[in-house]
Amino acid sequence: MFRPPRPVLPLVALAALLGASSPAGAQGDAADRYREAAGRILGRALVDEGAFQKLEHLTTRIGHRLSGSPGLEKAIDWALEGMKAEGLDGVRRQPVKVPRWIRGREWARLVSPVERELPVLGLGMSVGTPREGITAPVVVVRSFEELNALGREKVEGRIVAFTPDWEGYERTVRFRSSGASAAAKLGAAAVLVRSATGRSIASPHTGVLSYEAGVPKIPAAAITVEDAEWLRRMAAAGETVTVSLSMEARLEGEADSANVIAEIRGSERPEEVVVVGGHYDSWDVGQGAHDDGCACMAAWQALTILRELGLRPRRTLRVVLFTNEENGLRGGPAYREALGSDVSSHVAAIEMDGGCERPVGFGFGLTRPGVAPPSRRAGGPAEPEDPAARKALATLRRVGSLFGAIDAATVRWGGGGADISPLTRDGVPGLSLDTVGEHYFDWHHSHGDTIDKVDPADLRRATGMLAVMGYVLADMEERLVP
Amino acid sequence: MFRPPRPVLPLVALAALLGASSPAGAQGDAADRYREAAGRILGRALVDEGAFQKLEHLTTRIGHRLSGSPGLEKAIDWALEGMKAEGLDGVRRQPVKVPRWIRGREWARLVSPVERELPVLGLGMSVGTPREGITAPVVVVRSFEELNALGREKVEGRIVAFTPDWEGYERTVRFRSSGASAAAKLGAAAVLVRSATGRSIASPHTGVLSYEAGVPKIPAAAITVEDAEWLRRMAAAGETVTVSLSMEARLEGEADSANVIAEIRGSERPEEVVVVGGHYDSWDVGQGAHDDGCACMAAWQALTILRELGLRPRRTLRVVLFTNEENGLRGGPAYREALGSDVSSHVAAIEMDGGCERPVGFGFGLTRPGVAPPSRRAGGPAEPEDPAARKALATLRRVGSLFGAIDAATVRWGGGGADISPLTRDGVPGLSLDTVGEHYFDWHHSHGDTIDKVDPADLRRATGMLAVMGYVLADMEERLVP
Repeated sequence: MFRPPRPVLPLVALAALLGASSPAGAQGDAADRYREAAGRILGRALVDEGAFQKLEHLTTRIGHRLSGSPGLEKAIDWALEGMKAEGLDGVRRQPVKVPRWIRGREWARLVSPVERELPVLGLGMSVGTPREGITAPVVVVRSFEELNALGREKVEGRIVAFTPDWEGYERTVRFRSSGASAAAKLGAAAVLVRSATGRSIASPHTGVLSYEAGVPKIPAAAITVEDAEWLRRMAAAGETVTVSLSMEARLEGEADSANVIAEIRGSERPEEVVVVGGHYDSWDVGQGAHDDGCACMAAWQALTILRELGLRPRRTLRVVLFTNEENGLRGGPAYREALGSDVSSHVAAIEMDGGCERPVGFGFGLTRPGVAPPSRRAGGPAEPEDPAARKALATLRRVGSLFGAIDAATVRWGGGGADISPLTRDGVPGLSLDTVGEHYFDWHHSHGDTIDKVDPADLRRATGMLAVMGYVLADMEERLVP
Repeated sequence: MFRPPRPVLPLVALAALLGASSPAGAQGDAADRYREAAGRILGRALVDEGAFQKLEHLTTRIGHRLSGSPGLEKAIDWALEGMKAEGLDGVRRQPVKVPRWIRGREWARLVSPVERELPVLGLGMSVGTPREGITAPVVVVRSFEELNALGREKVEGRIVAFTPDWEGYERTVRFRSSGASAAAKLGAAAVLVRSATGRSIASPHTGVLSYEAGVPKIPAAAITVEDAEWLRRMAAAGETVTVSLSMEARLEGEADSANVIAEIRGSERPEEVVVVGGHYDSWDVGQGAHDDGCACMAAWQALTILRELGLRPRRTLRVVLFTNEENGLRGGPAYREALGSDVSSHVAAIEMDGGCERPVGFGFGLTRPGVAPPSRRAGGPAEPEDPAARKALATLRRVGSLFGAIDAATVRWGGGGADISPLTRDGVPGLSLDTVGEHYFDWHHSHGDTIDKVDPADLRRATGMLAVMGYVLADMEERLVP
């Protein structure tokens, strides 16, 4: 087993060479202690083809992986088999019940003032229409305020079209999540929602909706940006548009699925764990390449590379391919629940779920009793106030400095992810891989989320970063947050 | 009527201020002579909303305009009516017979090794399949060389999928144009072609094909970039893919259509003409916004603005909205034919048919007896050898310098267009509006060619440039090419 040697140059001199501060601490400087190991891992990852070859199999041979579909279960079996064949430790299936939502056939047409097809993609977990479909005039609104100002009289029996401006995913996706119930409260018959994307080539994007308890469930479908814009223009011209919508969507109970788990067992403290992963399920369109197949393959390959290099950290480094993130979020909570009171065994959790464009670094979050949790997204406070979080962030930034030559050295305050949120809520330090995030939402949840959008070089960089960060966090003398 | 005054500063001093050379000539310097008029025109155009309002009506109220469709004829009637209402001169319809190609219903499915829908868009002018469709294994090739190397034995009865790399439109579109006949010569049953675009969100792009005489006509459809890449990967993995294709496409004789013509009649030499225009027909998907509705509305509005400013040039400035460019090229030749021997009356022809992204200038071409015509695209010789062409290009560059403050001052050698090609072939100086050309082919011939992709500011700039260039060429003392 490999142990990183002490640097030859004194720490201060090396830090000066790096042009970065070297916070003194019980464990010395993380960057310097792991410089040589990181070089071996990163170097190997940057020329490695394993993650892309795996992603190629996953996306082109297996395809998309909706919860409850044969594709997801086939992918689970294939990963377990591959992980065993590679000799990873503790390869196992963690059973999880997942919702079986079925899209069925769906179509929509403009009936008047012009007749043409209206491309739609039903929202995940939506109910279907009656067998004869729903044909009704469309009420076009840009916001919940506009909707509510119209009142029941102008909404009842109509199809409400939400056509908000694109203000980024977080703000625009509200209409997809909550639009159906907001409209149903005023008696709407169905909902159409502008796809949550900034760029479109007539491509609808699906995604999950959330029905409010006690409010009638009405069918909801995504329309293209082009048609949302067209509806706005028609409404501005005073034209009433009538649409006919037909959806067979339905929820058919639950299906058996599983989180996929594999490890490199720790050499000294195997009961302490660093988790790295992403979600293995996808929507039923495209191939789930960026969302989130690439992350699963990168995390898996990170362990494969460490094993091949003979690098076994002090603690256990565990990859988890979480099932059912998209529609239900069952995999992450099931993982947490299985830990019981043993959550303190988890030293850190790293999630990658923002696609595999060029990585720029990591986000970091730490929830402490009595301290407000950091925002998962950029835009929150730049630095934590909690001293423990400040110290951990400084350590992570020193580790991050090892990614300077691949332009990915930024470690920002505020990070986490849906699958690891049950862990981070209970105090486990959470990291997320950050990318440039330039085109992710162009493809996200659409037929366009396919492997041709993944640059193998970006996937190699991400794999190397997960491997280095996972290894360092699992191997450091002291826990990241003691 | 407005006549540009002589500049107050001596020409040499002004030219020095402009940092550009001022070639001496019989007509002085075009930039200086027209500086004030150009300022009035450009200033007005840059704040004018007319072109965008017209484009909005055309695209959202009328929609796409396939030759032989009611949409095109509705658009023609609307333009004629509008031009008359605005008081343009000589508003008229020039009858043209156009092919009536009908897409009908079309669908394709992957039959094996996986079953799923395969989004297709039949190529324009394609024949349909037999009523029961065509189900056959797919032969995947990247080039005509690969196809021909396979030979009849491996192609006969199969569906040939052309999955070339994207090497820009000109090189990649060959497979769309000629793929069907190339495959039919080896007995192929049908053809699938990678859409001619560099970026895709699972969007097929149509476009015309050309059947070779004496070769069986087989059905041909565009597939998405995503599926072309998938087919390549499956072929590389040794998997045989079987596809079922069904198309009702058919040619139903000819239909009546028309070029739309309007003018500002020349004050001194009305029989001499400068033509400005684009094509009014489109494919039957999207709205034909960038291709080529924006050009038609820009050229029309260019005349509207000149008229409103009271600027009547010496020669006639004529807008022509050509019918049937996409599938047949009937409008341009009909216009030329109607001129008979009078083609020498045409001083210049300006075509805009590259979309309405941000304009960067103009291309210019001149075909002279015994002189090789310039390439229509960038990449040819930078300067003409023919002295007349050199002199004209220098004049146009001086006019172009007036567009410096909107970053559109480049006039390159090599320009023209399909609709004006029957004129330029016979010696009429030809110009084309050039744009940055960044995203045009992302939308081109797809459901995504809609007005939400048009930046009103770009349309204003293009309108102003067509108006200034048209006005100057129609008003210059001496013809551009005497």
